[in-house]
Amino acid sequence: MDKHNINVCFSPKLAADYADEESIVVVIDVLRATSAICTAIHYGAKQVIPVVNVEKAREYLDEDCIVGAERNGEIVEGFEYGNSPYSYAGDHVKDKTIVLSTTNGTFAIGAAQKSHQVVIASFLNLDAVSEWLAGKKRRITLMCAGWKNKFNLEDSLLAGAIADQLITNMENADPSDSAIAAQRLYNMAKNDLMGFLEDSSHRRRLKKLFIEKDVEYCLTPNQTNVIPILEAGNIVKLVE
Amino acid sequence: MDKHNINVCFSPKLAADYADEESIVVVIDVLRATSAICTAIHYGAKQVIPVVNVEKAREYLDEDCIVGAERNGEIVEGFEYGNSPYSYAGDHVKDKTIVLSTTNGTFAIGAAQKSHQVVIASFLNLDAVSEWLAGKKRRITLMCAGWKNKFNLEDSLLAGAIADQLITNMENADPSDSAIAAQRLYNMAKNDLMGFLEDSSHRRRLKKLFIEKDVEYCLTPNQTNVIPILEAGNIVKLVE
Repeated sequence: MDKHNINVCFSPKLAADYADEESIVVVIDVLRATSAICTAIHYGAKQVIPVVNVEKAREYLDEDCIVGAERNGEIVEGFEYGNSPYSYAGDHVKDKTIVLSTTNGTFAIGAAQKSHQVVIASFLNLDAVSEWLAGKKRRITLMCAGWKNKFNLEDSLLAGAIADQLITNMENADPSDSAIAAQRLYNMAKNDLMGFLEDSSHRRRLKKLFIEKDVEYCLTPNQTNVIPILEAGNIVKLVE
Repeated sequence: MDKHNINVCFSPKLAADYADEESIVVVIDVLRATSAICTAIHYGAKQVIPVVNVEKAREYLDEDCIVGAERNGEIVEGFEYGNSPYSYAGDHVKDKTIVLSTTNGTFAIGAAQKSHQVVIASFLNLDAVSEWLAGKKRRITLMCAGWKNKFNLEDSLLAGAIADQLITNMENADPSDSAIAAQRLYNMAKNDLMGFLEDSSHRRRLKKLFIEKDVEYCLTPNQTNVIPILEAGNIVKLVE
């Protein structure tokens, strides 16, 4: 019986070492890009176009789109939206195209594009994504966006939460060392995610930006069942 | 007061993101390259020359050296030695030059060379290395050799053990997310390292090679006080 490799990739720079064209890649950027994307798709956005450069995002400003650009946790000058999920929660996104450029999240999506399939995960759609993945018979790579190529805790914890469900529920799951490590970290942290992250560098960075409300929202599991998926370079709602 | 950044780098491929020319880099390849190097230096080897290519190692075969080459856990054909620490434990290494090429360890040493200083750590010299590092006023990067650019558990646990001592004992230690994660994993595992690693991929790989005795030895802390250090490309015993 074929074993299905469950991997966690802690940096998008290692994408080629962890995923191939047969893999399903799950992109994770808890604070806040993939939480924002799940929120937008939940509220009925038609699609989210991830763009790596701010300049590319700027080109869409005159079009009938909602355009968001974030760098280092803040909204880029000249844009109305950043990566706060609350910006994308509401009827104003319904049937709209959203263009989004963020520090780490859109880079991670770019790094994942050569794989079989790319889906977007956040704590908001944790159970829905995990259940969907558990039914697949493929290598799965949980790709943490991290922070400028580096490991970060919040993405690793969500990877651990998904890995935990796959190891428990997927037939012939074969977890790598990184999946085991992430799973164990998550199990240590799950009863108090906020507390566990208290010392993390990104939390410290974000505290300065006064977005505690965002952080709480992004760490609250299972607020939606949508699974955003990449199709021809754009993120849309998975319909099966 | 300056803070001293404590980082764990889970893949040598990320070396440039985690270390600069002001950093002290601690190279970790528990199973088994850095354990072998600590053993050789402990038994009085004059120096260990790390070489990345097997071909380069072969060039030394006719010289008055002990030459070791390992790939995928096994001794390369044509060589007498691999990376088993037991091969380097004894009077036969005294005052000798050892040339060593291994799958991951020597690659990690190569990746670290642009930093201020490179030291070699294993569980065998855990307290000695940690105590020495705690006295430094520099950025410290604990570089896991991993497995072919990927995260592995045993190296991460040793990084966590060192991070734990630095966070506790170093003045103005400023741990990154990866250091915090490694520390927490280590604290979860420390009372039964063998048990914690039972499921890890490398342990499974090594089990097939029947080197349980090596693994036990490599996971036993504080068998020596030597600190191997890189000087002009060669590893020698630190004398202060």
